[in-house]
Amino acid sequence: MSSNRSIYFFGADDPTLTSLDRNVVGGKGAGMAHMSRLKIPVPPGFTITTEMCLAYQRSGRLPDGLEEEVYRAVAKVEAMMAEQTGGDPEHPTFRFGDPSHPLLLSVRSGARASMPGMMDTVLNLGLNDTTIEGLMAISGDRRFALDSYRRFIQMYGDVVMGVAHDLFEHALSAARKDAGVKLDNQLTDEQLQRVIREYKEIVARHAGRPLPSDPREQLLGAIRAVFDSWNNQRAITYRRLNNIPDNWGTAVNVQVMVFGNMGDDSATGVAFTRNPATGERKFYGEFLINAQGEDVVAGIRTPHPISKGASQTLVSLEEAMPAIYQELLQISEVLEQHFTDMQDIEFTVQKGKLWMLQTRTGKRTAEAAVRIAVEMVDQGLIDIKEALHRVKPDQLDQLLHPRLDPKASKEVLAVGLPASPGAVSGAVVFTPEDAERLAELGQRTILVRIETSPEDIQGMASSEGTLTARGGMTSHAAVVSRGMGKPCVAGCGAIEVDYDQELFKVKDRIIRKGEVITLDGAAGEVILGDVPRLPPSFEGPVKQLVQWADEVRTLGIRTNADTPHDAAVARGFGAEGIGLCRTEHMFFAADRIDQVRQMILSDTAEDRREILKNLLVMQQQDFEGIFAAMDGYPVTIRLLDPPLHEFLPREDEEQEELAERIGREVGEIRTKIEALHEFNPMLGHRGVRLGVTFPDVYQMQVRAILQAAIQSKRAGVVVLPEIMVPLVATRTELELVKTAILQVAQEVFQEMGERLDFLVGTMIELPRACIVADQIAQEAQFFSFGTNDLTQTAFGLSRDDAGKFLPIYVKEGILPKDPFVALDQDGVGELVRIGVNKGRGAKPNLKVGICGEHGGEPSSIAFFHRIGLNYVSCSPYRVPVARLAAAQAALED
Amino acid sequence: MSSNRSIYFFGADDPTLTSLDRNVVGGKGAGMAHMSRLKIPVPPGFTITTEMCLAYQRSGRLPDGLEEEVYRAVAKVEAMMAEQTGGDPEHPTFRFGDPSHPLLLSVRSGARASMPGMMDTVLNLGLNDTTIEGLMAISGDRRFALDSYRRFIQMYGDVVMGVAHDLFEHALSAARKDAGVKLDNQLTDEQLQRVIREYKEIVARHAGRPLPSDPREQLLGAIRAVFDSWNNQRAITYRRLNNIPDNWGTAVNVQVMVFGNMGDDSATGVAFTRNPATGERKFYGEFLINAQGEDVVAGIRTPHPISKGASQTLVSLEEAMPAIYQELLQISEVLEQHFTDMQDIEFTVQKGKLWMLQTRTGKRTAEAAVRIAVEMVDQGLIDIKEALHRVKPDQLDQLLHPRLDPKASKEVLAVGLPASPGAVSGAVVFTPEDAERLAELGQRTILVRIETSPEDIQGMASSEGTLTARGGMTSHAAVVSRGMGKPCVAGCGAIEVDYDQELFKVKDRIIRKGEVITLDGAAGEVILGDVPRLPPSFEGPVKQLVQWADEVRTLGIRTNADTPHDAAVARGFGAEGIGLCRTEHMFFAADRIDQVRQMILSDTAEDRREILKNLLVMQQQDFEGIFAAMDGYPVTIRLLDPPLHEFLPREDEEQEELAERIGREVGEIRTKIEALHEFNPMLGHRGVRLGVTFPDVYQMQVRAILQAAIQSKRAGVVVLPEIMVPLVATRTELELVKTAILQVAQEVFQEMGERLDFLVGTMIELPRACIVADQIAQEAQFFSFGTNDLTQTAFGLSRDDAGKFLPIYVKEGILPKDPFVALDQDGVGELVRIGVNKGRGAKPNLKVGICGEHGGEPSSIAFFHRIGLNYVSCSPYRVPVARLAAAQAALED
Repeated sequence: MSSNRSIYFFGADDPTLTSLDRNVVGGKGAGMAHMSRLKIPVPPGFTITTEMCLAYQRSGRLPDGLEEEVYRAVAKVEAMMAEQTGGDPEHPTFRFGDPSHPLLLSVRSGARASMPGMMDTVLNLGLNDTTIEGLMAISGDRRFALDSYRRFIQMYGDVVMGVAHDLFEHALSAARKDAGVKLDNQLTDEQLQRVIREYKEIVARHAGRPLPSDPREQLLGAIRAVFDSWNNQRAITYRRLNNIPDNWGTAVNVQVMVFGNMGDDSATGVAFTRNPATGERKFYGEFLINAQGEDVVAGIRTPHPISKGASQTLVSLEEAMPAIYQELLQISEVLEQHFTDMQDIEFTVQKGKLWMLQTRTGKRTAEAAVRIAVEMVDQGLIDIKEALHRVKPDQLDQLLHPRLDPKASKEVLAVGLPASPGAVSGAVVFTPEDAERLAELGQRTILVRIETSPEDIQGMASSEGTLTARGGMTSHAAVVSRGMGKPCVAGCGAIEVDYDQELFKVKDRIIRKGEVITLDGAAGEVILGDVPRLPPSFEGPVKQLVQWADEVRTLGIRTNADTPHDAAVARGFGAEGIGLCRTEHMFFAADRIDQVRQMILSDTAEDRREILKNLLVMQQQDFEGIFAAMDGYPVTIRLLDPPLHEFLPREDEEQEELAERIGREVGEIRTKIEALHEFNPMLGHRGVRLGVTFPDVYQMQVRAILQAAIQSKRAGVVVLPEIMVPLVATRTELELVKTAILQVAQEVFQEMGERLDFLVGTMIELPRACIVADQIAQEAQFFSFGTNDLTQTAFGLSRDDAGKFLPIYVKEGILPKDPFVALDQDGVGELVRIGVNKGRGAKPNLKVGICGEHGGEPSSIAFFHRIGLNYVSCSPYRVPVARLAAAQAALED
Repeated sequence: MSSNRSIYFFGADDPTLTSLDRNVVGGKGAGMAHMSRLKIPVPPGFTITTEMCLAYQRSGRLPDGLEEEVYRAVAKVEAMMAEQTGGDPEHPTFRFGDPSHPLLLSVRSGARASMPGMMDTVLNLGLNDTTIEGLMAISGDRRFALDSYRRFIQMYGDVVMGVAHDLFEHALSAARKDAGVKLDNQLTDEQLQRVIREYKEIVARHAGRPLPSDPREQLLGAIRAVFDSWNNQRAITYRRLNNIPDNWGTAVNVQVMVFGNMGDDSATGVAFTRNPATGERKFYGEFLINAQGEDVVAGIRTPHPISKGASQTLVSLEEAMPAIYQELLQISEVLEQHFTDMQDIEFTVQKGKLWMLQTRTGKRTAEAAVRIAVEMVDQGLIDIKEALHRVKPDQLDQLLHPRLDPKASKEVLAVGLPASPGAVSGAVVFTPEDAERLAELGQRTILVRIETSPEDIQGMASSEGTLTARGGMTSHAAVVSRGMGKPCVAGCGAIEVDYDQELFKVKDRIIRKGEVITLDGAAGEVILGDVPRLPPSFEGPVKQLVQWADEVRTLGIRTNADTPHDAAVARGFGAEGIGLCRTEHMFFAADRIDQVRQMILSDTAEDRREILKNLLVMQQQDFEGIFAAMDGYPVTIRLLDPPLHEFLPREDEEQEELAERIGREVGEIRTKIEALHEFNPMLGHRGVRLGVTFPDVYQMQVRAILQAAIQSKRAGVVVLPEIMVPLVATRTELELVKTAILQVAQEVFQEMGERLDFLVGTMIELPRACIVADQIAQEAQFFSFGTNDLTQTAFGLSRDDAGKFLPIYVKEGILPKDPFVALDQDGVGELVRIGVNKGRGAKPNLKVGICGEHGGEPSSIAFFHRIGLNYVSCSPYRVPVARLAAAQAALED
């Protein structure tokens, strides 16, 4: 196939005249050519190449010789049509411009990539005052012919001659008004003829010249108009948004018109070779007898199903035109075999003959994508690798959470960030206490906060989902919600929360406490009322797909889980261990937060020690539960990380209540809170710095971990504890804390009369730690990159405060993506790469993982695979996503 | 000289028996050997090498053969002493252990590096119940002999036999009590003899064996004790603190005792070859007739000056012993010529004969260090390079600020961080308003705050100095004070500030508003009352020294200056331009802060624009002043950096006052403040992020800079403006802002009908910026590393919050130094290096500087020199320090 030709044909017998090269003939042209070669009946036609479009753009006129070539192509198309319809190709009956037997043409754009609705189309080309008579005669339907002529003038006037669309619509609606009718098809022939006359006058007046009656002139005008439409504003914007290069150009497809509205032996329809919503392997579509393509989608007439049994009242194509149905079914099989993917097709039946007008890869839901990919492997149509490529990892996320029923109607109040997927409904509450109280009464709530803090965790757990006015994709609300697998819409700036009056506003609309709203965490939508939802599933095809992914991937997949429940959920999704267990979340549980507070407020070392003994018992139980849930898999436990003031109450009232509960002066408590205040808590007294300054807390935690591990081992559980020290910046810090950890281990082993293998490692989450990773590796048995904090420090960007400018940055393209969602590979990723290389340089067998939010994001996972990490760790509900993404990354190698 | 020998001699005629190698014979031994070779009279003796010490440490016993060698050496020393004192070396009169003419020995440690007081010494070795009689006879002074014996038993019992010092002291004080006297020398011979008997009993009882009377046994015991003392706890700690390797070991010096208390023809003294306080080239010291060395420093008798004219009442050595004085003066000359540095010497005159006991390089004040270095160049003793090495750059800092008079007494209330050098006194005030008000009345104040914020700047400028309870070496108070050249003691945790009662407490002591205190910013001391001070100087030797530095250094030295005054001061100190002019400091001036606030609070773009017009006029005046002060030098101006909320008042009352002043509702103001609140302002909406989101502020600033530049140029000033964009993390950010800057420039040039060259560059102060410096360099004409923020982000460490753990980190050696004071070269420095290399890789002629606090710190300056920066920029008062440090760095190459 040479691309030197300026025109290729389709619908022809001779395959050498066709081109399958999308770059040359565009997507639509290539689809037609494919069908031609498969001997599927398509109305004959030809494609003018994208190269001609580019030549036209350069010179501003049609390339030399193209005009004559177009005329010759039209003649060839006349012959091809004659041959296909049983006529004499040497003397075709129907010819372009023939007064008694006019052949009509369509002119459509067709770029390499689909740009739906962006460029122009002209139908019914070839009609004029003479040929209209022929069309009336052949079709035996004056109204059809007149209406076709009317539409042609309107479309040509608009697209080719630049006459405003509105002018025609006004004239038409005036005609309807005069006639006293509501629908166009209620106009009489005479009334239609009047409209046609008026249309012609509008064109002449506003374009400054009459509509050309010469069909050849019409054709050249339409071709130019399609070429021009490559550079209309809509198309340019679409290309920029979708990263389509300007220099691709569009092809032009000129094709014989066929009509589905030529009587009861005619029909038109659209179909999918499988169900695009569910993926079921069943021919699926809609059609109308005696109708044009646009009637199927216009909603005036109700389309009928194609296959039997889909409707009890409407007659299917299978019943109405059984032979056509069988032919279509066979074509559908051929197309799937040929393209090895589900196809979206358009067809027309003209006087008992089936014509295919389009085939393309069909869009589908996440559910359908998975099922189709898996079933096509079973059918032998594609192999496993191909199936793994067919599903976008992020799509799996939708399947693992309840979704809004796509058929349900909804009133969207506001849109925030899609912080944690899933759809839920509940009564609005504004305090975590209300959420907890109502949960005990069995009521479902949505917690609405300006922003959340660790104190809100119980309330978040008690509610169905969380809505915040501030904060980004990795704000506290977002991270905690994803960890819990609860839906969250974060940073919804359009809502104005008034805690005092217990209401929130969206512009003038007021939503009070108790009113029901629905959150769609995957779309970031806040919706009024209770919108119906579909349940999630992790069985069948999706399970099969991620099992295949496991065979391919080399990256390990762990989960971030803080409770036995989360651990069990993650394991169900295929997690191979815990990469991050945050011990502080346990500290916030209702039965221990006051103990934690007393520890922080204690005046003497003895008081502290007493309280730590109590906490030790509780933490040991926590860890036993987690070890049991992760039996046989490693569990990485991070020692206390957040600054202590996060555990103390902020509000005056809460402080007073606490003082009363624990029997201390509120003044003392406030003084302590004041003393612990930090200007930049993110950069403050936290992580290993607590381990250095308050060694007894870390000692208690290490003791709880190891005692739990030995107890679990005695109970028959296979335990692989990994103790992780957070926020390390220097080797000496880690050395100091490691020494203390080994000391405690020695004590515990002696006391319990039993030893146990465990690892000591560190989070790498500060730029300095990446730069001196060779030094730190001397003291570490593993590294786990904390890419959340690393992103914050590398960019100097607080997740909690970025809401004021980060959205603008992403919108204006200063940052390609939110770096808290997709890893910034140039900057943060490079720091990770330096850290991995330096760490492994000093200790070649160093185990290296990542436990930031990026561990569940496909493009980031691909990066982590490339730089040779051992595993990623993500929230439980992202585990299947990560398994698939890791497989795709491995296949890229 | 071979180090195979285990013993070297000094005080001998034969130079081949001596060693000058400090590694072998230690510092003290080498000093003696030097003097021996210079024919300066030293009491003869020998040095046992450090190698013997190490062998002893390894085996736990004296090396084979050493004992005999020691005995032979003692015999040789007897001969040498005879020869030196005009006796017969073949038959020496004085011999070790001789009953009638006992030669006494001292045994002293002597490591490579001076470790004053860390290891043990035994004097008067050789005394026992027999030889004491001989000593009495020769000296003719029973009391002297008995007291020497008592001291020997106490010293030997303690050092060699491990009997607690206290036991002897108790016995002695009991004896004094019994005798009814206050001083030891008031005891009678009989009483002394009783003490000696008691001492012997104490030794026998507590050591379990009697004090050896055999002088040889005494000698070997003392040698072992000195070897052992290398590993006493004091010495180990000292070595760790001073980075002295454990495997150096110590030498042992065994030397003939001479006595300055053998009558009126005996004396003892200490001297410096030049004045160690002022550096004046004049022999300087103190002595006492008929006294022992310790009497000179013990304070019981007032020492006399060595040279004539230093005292009106006390007889000088020059007058009392003119021949000895001349001999000493000559020795002093010889030693300076030989060591080419000022020497600290000790001497004893025994019965009319001068003996030198020690020479070493003398410690000196900053003033003396500079003057001596410069004058020794003038004398031709050393060259300029050597002079530049003789002064520690940090010492210059002391000379450029008022210092406490070292002779004045002072009551130190508390010690904080030495945040900004200089000594000042003033009345305590607690609000910037009070400081301003009292300054207008001509009163000097010290501003005391828990911590400072930008609102306090005017108050800080109005007060003499600032004291804060919180914050580190680079807290707001510290940075601003250094910039202003005002003393500051920061993070003084011992003071408890009570704003309500207008007082601060130090433990139980209360200091109220109006009481006078003195701050010593170089020492971090808070002192009660008004302590006398010495004025600074930047003339004479110090000016000469830094001029020599300029001839050697390759690194440019600029200054951080925000006002014409600061710029002029820095220029006086030799600054070659401004590396950082912070425009926001101008925003806080009393006449414009309300305008700035109104701009922030304005509701419409028009309101903003109006206010910006006013600010434009003011900023333009600021810049004209600065350009004039820096005529001929480049001026780097940073566009607005801090988050906007920093400009708004924090306290309720201030908010109410502001509302009244500008005629707005206080509620509105509070809502705005609430909306601008940030959890981590350091990582928030600041720097270029303001430029992106509020472009009109940057546009105003650029316009002010360029209009000022053109006006200044017209006035004959040579202007080289460099516009600097802060906190850039991505290339696109800088590109966007740069485009806007160039656009404004175009407008200004057109309006004013004149063009002007200027540069556009960026601060590199985020880890990501270092990592992608190659991308950012595409848009930048210069880089200036902001190592303050880079340290904060690389370490994840907020300057303002680090006070809670950073001091512990430094104290426990987790960090070798406060990384905000001395650049962390491994981590932050490596990021700078990466940034420089990537930046220059993309743009080879990129100008690169640094404008963080580290720009004035010598070890950091050396690093910046090594990695090839073009310049450093530091606060005005650090400019001379930086010039010298840069010269030293260049000499290191």
